[in-house]
Amino acid sequence: MSRAVCPGSFDPIHNGHIEVISRASRLFDEVIVAVSTNYAKKYRFGIDERLAFCSESLAHLPGVTVRPMGAGLVAEFCREHGAAALVKGLRSGLDFDYELPMATMNRHLADVETVFLPTGTEFAHVSSTLLKEVAGLGGDIGAFVPDAVLARLRPEG
Amino acid sequence: MSRAVCPGSFDPIHNGHIEVISRASRLFDEVIVAVSTNYAKKYRFGIDERLAFCSESLAHLPGVTVRPMGAGLVAEFCREHGAAALVKGLRSGLDFDYELPMATMNRHLADVETVFLPTGTEFAHVSSTLLKEVAGLGGDIGAFVPDAVLARLRPEG
Amino acid sequence: MSRAVCPGSFDPIHNGHIEVISRASRLFDEVIVAVSTNYAKKYRFGIDERLAFCSESLAHLPGVTVRPMGAGLVAEFCREHGAAALVKGLRSGLDFDYELPMATMNRHLADVETVFLPTGTEFAHVSSTLLKEVAGLGGDIGAFVPDAVLARLRPEG
Amino acid sequence: MSRAVCPGSFDPIHNGHIEVISRASRLFDEVIVAVSTNYAKKYRFGIDERLAFCSESLAHLPGVTVRPMGAGLVAEFCREHGAAALVKGLRSGLDFDYELPMATMNRHLADVETVFLPTGTEFAHVSSTLLKEVAGLGGDIGAFVPDAVLARLRPEG
Amino acid sequence: MSRAVCPGSFDPIHNGHIEVISRASRLFDEVIVAVSTNYAKKYRFGIDERLAFCSESLAHLPGVTVRPMGAGLVAEFCREHGAAALVKGLRSGLDFDYELPMATMNRHLADVETVFLPTGTEFAHVSSTLLKEVAGLGGDIGAFVPDAVLARLRPEG
Amino acid sequence: MSRAVCPGSFDPIHNGHIEVISRASRLFDEVIVAVSTNYAKKYRFGIDERLAFCSESLAHLPGVTVRPMGAGLVAEFCREHGAAALVKGLRSGLDFDYELPMATMNRHLADVETVFLPTGTEFAHVSSTLLKEVAGLGGDIGAFVPDAVLARLRPEG
Repeated sequence: MSRAVCPGSFDPIHNGHIEVISRASRLFDEVIVAVSTNYAKKYRFGIDERLAFCSESLAHLPGVTVRPMGAGLVAEFCREHGAAALVKGLRSGLDFDYELPMATMNRHLADVETVFLPTGTEFAHVSSTLLKEVAGLGGDIGAFVPDAVLARLRPEG
Repeated sequence: MSRAVCPGSFDPIHNGHIEVISRASRLFDEVIVAVSTNYAKKYRFGIDERLAFCSESLAHLPGVTVRPMGAGLVAEFCREHGAAALVKGLRSGLDFDYELPMATMNRHLADVETVFLPTGTEFAHVSSTLLKEVAGLGGDIGAFVPDAVLARLRPEG
Repeated sequence: MSRAVCPGSFDPIHNGHIEVISRASRLFDEVIVAVSTNYAKKYRFGIDERLAFCSESLAHLPGVTVRPMGAGLVAEFCREHGAAALVKGLRSGLDFDYELPMATMNRHLADVETVFLPTGTEFAHVSSTLLKEVAGLGGDIGAFVPDAVLARLRPEG
Repeated sequence: MSRAVCPGSFDPIHNGHIEVISRASRLFDEVIVAVSTNYAKKYRFGIDERLAFCSESLAHLPGVTVRPMGAGLVAEFCREHGAAALVKGLRSGLDFDYELPMATMNRHLADVETVFLPTGTEFAHVSSTLLKEVAGLGGDIGAFVPDAVLARLRPEG
Repeated sequence: MSRAVCPGSFDPIHNGHIEVISRASRLFDEVIVAVSTNYAKKYRFGIDERLAFCSESLAHLPGVTVRPMGAGLVAEFCREHGAAALVKGLRSGLDFDYELPMATMNRHLADVETVFLPTGTEFAHVSSTLLKEVAGLGGDIGAFVPDAVLARLRPEG
Repeated sequence: MSRAVCPGSFDPIHNGHIEVISRASRLFDEVIVAVSTNYAKKYRFGIDERLAFCSESLAHLPGVTVRPMGAGLVAEFCREHGAAALVKGLRSGLDFDYELPMATMNRHLADVETVFLPTGTEFAHVSSTLLKEVAGLGGDIGAFVPDAVLARLRPEG
């Protein structure tokens, strides 16, 4: 009955995402992981690959589905899919100050709540951006991403 | 099926609380407003009055019940009542940095999630402490509390 | 006698700007809205259009004038126009930490004060960047911008 | 014509206060330093001594007057004295998040603006509380308080 | 040769303290854990017990010694013991904004640096205050304190 | 014996950097200033010039050496050079929230500590980015950079 959307670019999905989505899946009957594409942004992985990484990494979680969000409003996506809430992980007060305007806007646009879950402490320092940077420089990020992602982020021999 | 706890001292309940609880009640099937008593704290209103203010102000919200929490752990209260989540309003990044340790501890103690909802912008500056102070000095706080609370906070003639 | 400068790119002006400028106009005899152009930035609207939006939206405020700032230092602009203060809206602690270095620098460069006014709570989530993004995706931002701006931000049929 | 109020307990006034008040006095025609007394608080110095320290330290600033505020609402004090604005020093984003609720409340109660000035960097770490604590332990705080205050804060021989 | 001071009330010491002190001991040749007593504060454990908990919990760390600091200035303590630096754990930006004034003051008073180490993520939510509160309500804090402390914090049967 | 790395792009070095490095050099026997090059970034000054500015500005500090870091991981650089710690200046809580993920990652990757020193208050508003912007617009930044840098940042006649 209760349905939530976890939006993001997931470029790529990492274990911090998976942990938050897993916790969200225990709070809501259904969680839709909505993979966005913003034409003004450059992505490391194409939408198909990002979707595949998500689907594979989240297959073990009951009630979790993965869908492309297209380039529309996330508030509109929620309305179309009958979701009353967005779920976002929060790592710090800085994150909150950054997310609050969008959360307020989404409530204004479509009466969609944003529900913030604090990121698990063991992943509070992990972001896709940092992981891509570290992996690109040869750092071992095996502890923070699923195996399929790790294989693709490894710098070539 | 899904059940959440909104904990607080509610000394007294104000419209910011009511707004967050109202929004929580649309996300969860059942919301238990848990009114705490900490013997180390001084309250303006006794537990019975705080409970009465809450019950009266929240009677219109389906699925919301009001209960005293006693002096135990909120994590334990959640476990006893089969609630998977705590709900807290967040007004600022400062609030988040302040709440995060307790949220992490409650997850450790009883695997209880804390779900943060950003306070509605029209109530982001409202707290029971500020309202008591303003009312005590003769300020008009009618916009921020239910009528029953207003009557009791008004300075005597 | 007292004169303040409200600097910004105003790309475009929105109701949060207008509210802060309106409040500033009651604190200072004269408020100069200084529309900046930074050659390293991309703007959605050209300087003429940004000026026109500002002039039209602020025409009702006595003591408020709109001027292009050119690409020079805001501190220099203040000195040339005999303004003792800059006025900036603040939405959060994050905003303050971000603005503080520039404020300190402007005091160093030209003994110009930066006066911070907290953004009205109903606009604390509004920024030109977010509005352009939401409007571009078809969201209704009519509550946050003047009509002239709304017409120009609406996605084409 | 333009009049602002600088409220505080000034227990005791220090050089950071003086610097902010001095800067405020260049922005407003008249600045009223309003020394508050909150009966729930313990003060190190009585109201007469706090007023005397303020008067003595600020005598050189044209347009600055010192008055007791009593125990009423600061918003009410502004209304009675025809002041359109409160002036507060800000040391950090944490300060802003802490001050914002009161600023919003004062605007609600009496349409009084709160104008924030960033504390001068050389005093950003100074507060009456810290100075009393340091002086009480024998630390030299001569750089941070007027001479009259220093003499009274020095631990007895 | 290099010597640092880790000051605190350690009421009681917990695993987050131990982790930061352990990391500090690898950066400095000698670390003095300075257990403070502030006569204005109430402590759960007396100075002897706090010292004993610290000594026992830190005995395995080479170069770490435990001493009472008395009620004097920490800057003075550093000077007397020839320490060039204080070491503090930081859990959040809020912590930093709170600690910065004291760090700046200590540099002013005795040219003592404050070196901040980010708290290990697994202890970022742990403080003596929270642990005492949780333990007092019957919560299991065994993961966060040494055994000796746990035994003393356990509520009586 | 104790060795620390001060990493940065130093584009260009300014007096805030120099102050932090100078203070670090009193805490550690040896400080390596590691000048990074990230191929995804645009620099105002080439690596040779950035190195020369650093060497010249830091020549008076015993135990401080300047080296190019290349485009590798800073954690790897520390390991290669036997450094147990990174040193970073912190200007605000915002800075800390921004730096914490990298600090945690570097501890994970190579067991390298990040040691935060609060920036001296007189330089808390200074960054290379702001200085380049101000200088480019004709502002006098002589108080914030070494002479050699000033000469190169001055806008052409």
